[in-house]
Parts: sequence; C-alpha cells; structure tokens
Amino acid sequence: MSGHFITFEGGEGAGKTSVLHSLNSKLQDLGYDVLATREPGGIEIAEQIRNIVLDTKDTKIEERTEALLYAAARRQHLVEKVLPALEQGKIVLCDRFVDSSLAYQGHARGLGMDEVFAINQFAVQDAMPDLTLFFDIDPKKGLARIKANKDRERNRLDLEKFHFHEKVYEAYHILMKRFADRMQMINADQTMEAVEKEAMDRILSYLQKSE
Amino acid sequence: MSGHFITFEGGEGAGKTSVLHSLNSKLQDLGYDVLATREPGGIEIAEQIRNIVLDTKDTKIEERTEALLYAAARRQHLVEKVLPALEQGKIVLCDRFVDSSLAYQGHARGLGMDEVFAINQFAVQDAMPDLTLFFDIDPKKGLARIKANKDRERNRLDLEKFHFHEKVYEAYHILMKRFADRMQMINADQTMEAVEKEAMDRILSYLQKSE
Repeated sequence: MSGHFITFEGGEGAGKTSVLHSLNSKLQDLGYDVLATREPGGIEIAEQIRNIVLDTKDTKIEERTEALLYAAARRQHLVEKVLPALEQGKIVLCDRFVDSSLAYQGHARGLGMDEVFAINQFAVQDAMPDLTLFFDIDPKKGLARIKANKDRERNRLDLEKFHFHEKVYEAYHILMKRFADRMQMINADQTMEAVEKEAMDRILSYLQKSE
Repeated sequence: MSGHFITFEGGEGAGKTSVLHSLNSKLQDLGYDVLATREPGGIEIAEQIRNIVLDTKDTKIEERTEALLYAAARRQHLVEKVLPALEQGKIVLCDRFVDSSLAYQGHARGLGMDEVFAINQFAVQDAMPDLTLFFDIDPKKGLARIKANKDRERNRLDLEKFHFHEKVYEAYHILMKRFADRMQMINADQTMEAVEKEAMDRILSYLQKSE
C-alpha cells in the first residue's frame, strides 16, 4: 500500500464532516491525490446494507445485528473503494470507520468494545487507518450545533437519548489511549477555521513524517 | 431455556430439508410442541439481508461481506424467532445454522473456520444447538439428486463448482470431530424413509436423555 488512510472520528455535531470536505479541497490544491469518502460511499451492496440499518421506521433491529451489518457495509466499502485508492497511492479521507463502531455499538450500546473489535477485525483485516483524527467536543455543545442546523440529515442515531452521546464521548477518550499511535485529538470547540487549521497541520505533519 | 434447539446440517441434496418437514409433522403427532424454521424464516430484517446475499445477478459481493451478512441474518432470526420458541419450551428444528457458515464460508471459501466462528459467536452468544444432525452423503450423489429435481429453488451457492462442494463435505467431517458432543451423523445415502427413521431415532433418543 503506497497511499495514506486517514479517518475522521467524533460524536454528533463535532464538525468532522465539514472539515473533511474542506481539507479534501485544500489537499488537492496542494497537489495531493485525494479520495474523500464515507461508508457506504455509493457502493451498491453497502448502500443496500445501510438502508436496512438506518431505516428510522424499523425499530426492531437488534443491536448485534446492527453491529454485524455495519461491519459488512464497512468491508464492502473498504474492498471496492478504499483499498483500490490506497493501491493507487491516494490519500483517503474517510468519515468514520472502525472506531465509530467501537464507540457507538461497543461502548454506548454496551456490546463491549473487544467483541465489536473482533467482528471489525474480521471485516478490515490489517487495513487499519494510518492516522485517525478525533474531533473532541463536549456532547452537549455538539448536539446543540445539530439542533441549530435543520438541514442536516437526520437518522436513527440522532434520535437516541443524550446519555448515549455521553457514552460515545467517553468511548473516544478510551480509544485515544488504546490507539495512541494512530489517534490524534483535535479541539473541535473552536471556530470552523481554527478546527480546520489544526486538522490540516496534523495531516501535513503526518505526511511529512511518512515520506 | 426449557426448549430444545436441534439443527439440520449437510451439503446440497442431502435431503435434510425434506426430512426436517416430515419430522416436524411426526413429532407434532407424538404431542410435541415444535417449530420448524430456517434462516431468514420470514423475519423481515433477515429476509432483507438474505435478498442482498442471494441475489444471483449480484456477483460482486465480497466473501467476508457475505459471511458478516449471514451472521447478521442469523442473529435477527435467532432473537426474533428461535429464542422466543425455546423460552416457550418448544422443540426448534432449524434448517442450517452456525455450522453451515463454518463449512461454506469458513472452509470451502477459505476464510478460516476459526475466524468465521468468531463472528458467529458474536451473533449467537451462548445459543448453540443442543443437537445437530449432519446428513452425510457423497457430494457427487447429493448434487445428482438436485439435478434430478428441477423444481428446487436455485440460488447462488448451487452455481458454485463441484470442488467447492467437496470442501463443504470435508468441512462437515472436521466439524463432526470438533463438536462431537452435539453433532451426530445420519447416513443420508439411503431411501428417504430410512433417513427419516434414523434422524427420528436420534431425536427421540436425545429427548429421552434430556428429560
């Protein structure tokens, strides 16, 4: 693999998706070959899986079923889209990856991080990110940002109770310690410009070191 | 759990499905409360998952994605249909379960039985079968039976090459040793009546012992 696999992680309203798209443009302006993506990323099978998971009318889906479906969609998106881009030497910026499942399903839903990591290791094998940026913001502030933005796509996860988001936040801090080698924390409680700059500095610093 | 969880396993054309339906009737005639099922078993989410897996037009599905989807459908079917029946004290006869994934995805597709068992343990937790009947028949004979029966539902697995079915057969014999406590071998290379009788004897013997 000659490319660089960089994932963006964080709770709801941390601004990571906006920052990802902005940095995609800026990195391309600097001459880098970049792919910005998120699961299911237009991959047909992964889209079909996502439709099962995110159907807000369907409240019967069981937690372990959900975790297995996320892992399945992740696998297909990885194989069809991420790995080919990495083989072409691209920088892949991916909005959420394994850490999201560890935080949301593993910790917040209480399935256990190790158990959820096991099915995700089956899904991704050795294709873990080279760098993960965790956008750190108090969940109260993150959720307030979402409420202020009525246009934002609403899905089933957004409907969960506040306690759930506190557990997600707690999980990311556990993951920061566990995966200290690849995870870096971005202070997301700043202006968008400041968050973008901090994230960009981390990515450029990583790229310099890996040359 | 006061019920009894009995699974039927074997390669294509072993006759296990016909035997399962026949024994369902016979056990009910004897006064037992029985549920005959198979994944996805009319469970809406599991049916949706199965549609993704078994779409014969879709040749792009990756092997690990497929294994994760089978585990997801298994989980939902287990939680919605099998476990409630076991809690009601029923005998559940299930056409294929974890062993099928170990044989088909784990061994025949080469993903590794231990790896596929790991994601299935996540899916079923401690709900492993009490008794598993393996319908043993040379894959050449089994496949010849299928060809003779044109009405039989054709799916993607039936289209695989013969070598694949030999690997499946080999896998079941490995599983017979690994899970010797719960697995019993039925000679499926007999008349349907003889196969049925052998399977019925094993089930009644198990039921007597578990009283």
